[in-house]
Amino acid sequence: MVETDLLKGFNYERTLNEDPRTKTVWLLGHVSRKTGRDVAILIAEKTHFSPTELAGFVDRLRNVRTQVEGNDIYHWFFSEWDGETDMKITLIVPATETHIAKYTPQPVHYVLETPDMYNALVKPFIELEPLKRIQWVYNIVDGTAESERVVLRTSGEEGFVLLPDMKWDGVTMDHLYLLVIVNTRTVRSIRDLGSGHLPLLQSIRDRVPAFVSERYGVSPDELRLFCHYQPSYYHFHVHVTHLKYADAPRVMIGQSHLLDTIIDNIKHIRGDYYQVATLPSIIGEKHGIWKAMQKSKDAL
Amino acid sequence: MVETDLLKGFNYERTLNEDPRTKTVWLLGHVSRKTGRDVAILIAEKTHFSPTELAGFVDRLRNVRTQVEGNDIYHWFFSEWDGETDMKITLIVPATETHIAKYTPQPVHYVLETPDMYNALVKPFIELEPLKRIQWVYNIVDGTAESERVVLRTSGEEGFVLLPDMKWDGVTMDHLYLLVIVNTRTVRSIRDLGSGHLPLLQSIRDRVPAFVSERYGVSPDELRLFCHYQPSYYHFHVHVTHLKYADAPRVMIGQSHLLDTIIDNIKHIRGDYYQVATLPSIIGEKHGIWKAMQKSKDAL
Repeated sequence: MVETDLLKGFNYERTLNEDPRTKTVWLLGHVSRKTGRDVAILIAEKTHFSPTELAGFVDRLRNVRTQVEGNDIYHWFFSEWDGETDMKITLIVPATETHIAKYTPQPVHYVLETPDMYNALVKPFIELEPLKRIQWVYNIVDGTAESERVVLRTSGEEGFVLLPDMKWDGVTMDHLYLLVIVNTRTVRSIRDLGSGHLPLLQSIRDRVPAFVSERYGVSPDELRLFCHYQPSYYHFHVHVTHLKYADAPRVMIGQSHLLDTIIDNIKHIRGDYYQVATLPSIIGEKHGIWKAMQKSKDAL
Repeated sequence: MVETDLLKGFNYERTLNEDPRTKTVWLLGHVSRKTGRDVAILIAEKTHFSPTELAGFVDRLRNVRTQVEGNDIYHWFFSEWDGETDMKITLIVPATETHIAKYTPQPVHYVLETPDMYNALVKPFIELEPLKRIQWVYNIVDGTAESERVVLRTSGEEGFVLLPDMKWDGVTMDHLYLLVIVNTRTVRSIRDLGSGHLPLLQSIRDRVPAFVSERYGVSPDELRLFCHYQPSYYHFHVHVTHLKYADAPRVMIGQSHLLDTIIDNIKHIRGDYYQVATLPSIIGEKHGIWKAMQKSKDAL
């Protein structure tokens, strides 16, 4: 039996697994051979675009269908590509320099931030950031914006709001993504956390998984609660995602810190852990802190 | 101009970015309209298999080509799918129960491992593991196997070997993946690390990025050095990947620990950090430790 016949003889039984992100399926079946009936697993992965195809991209499109949700400069389509395989297309026109920058990969650097570097470079950078950049966060916490999206609100200095992240569709539980934003304005990042914040941190740890379990049916041991460092905005917040959402943005070590580890470090290791620890950062060259570091590194 | 004409009028200029894993490309171009020439960005993503297509999978294959690297039970093909879009196919036949288990997703649980849990459940589990399961690791360290794959070897109790991980193709630098395996047999996991291991850890930190930079041209600030916990085998080893390899296996917080953080914790925070800290683990139900935990949790 030649190998291509082996493939043609595959009889599908059931799907073992599939990954829509990578367009891969794992199928269980069997192949009958002279020697008997063999169990078989077939793994199929769609291939990437070849670079040479990209120049004449639109010439290879067939049967283009426009989606109704087109919005301003964003236009969505489905189309076949040469044959019958579908692809999803987004066209942004007119696109600005900001759009181009957003979709162009920027060089990133791994930086170990010592307490001295934090005090000399990062803290002044945070304090100089115009507060209007986080006005939208204050609006959520104060209840003057997005109040209908908040699913849980607790009051006081140890209070917080919980709301779905914009990236979550609200339906796919494997991609569950919520955000905890604290009421207090005095914690800009994990660097500011100390023993005095244990009631706040513990309140998030106790109440959020219980609430998520009740509201969305995702059990507490399927959740990952973590903080980014550097965060994308300097008002303390905690990301809540499903464990299976393994490619949630910046969930990798070197960019994130687990809430449980933060609590343990402060409670059992040292109350001033986040003031004395050297913390990793992965910083893009477009980030304001990278520019500040480049300017000031001679000063250190 | 109807929207489909807008897409047909896209003129390709250059590729901004592409992601072979998700089969997505970001193209820069322009569209000429009555109002002038607009910059445009086109984002195309191949769609996933639809579940209804999977039952009749092999009937939709066209122009199957066999790859030469077929090996024993593994057979590799390229094929078109209905039309002209390529896909890569792996057929495993005869497949065993172990293969089926490997490709079937298992439920996973987030567990906080206190020092007490480590001592009562995990340490005995590690000590009862048959050493023959890591004989292959000893063979590499002793030089009796895979010696031609080792790219760096240092001697003594603070020594280690460095070799490419089997998952790396050795060519794509964005997916660079190397493994450091230490000579000493006394460190089973990060739980065993203490002040006495700082020379070993520091030697890895100093020598590996410098070597990788010289040999592969990847600069030290583009690398991520980390340890898994729980590891997949209990002989201390360090993973070395490119920063851009953001979906390297289990590189997420809750499953990995950055070597720099390990060194900082032991050197500047507490020498016995890894004996007194509560460490997160994400454990699949098929893992021996999960079974041990289920059996013994009443004993705690």
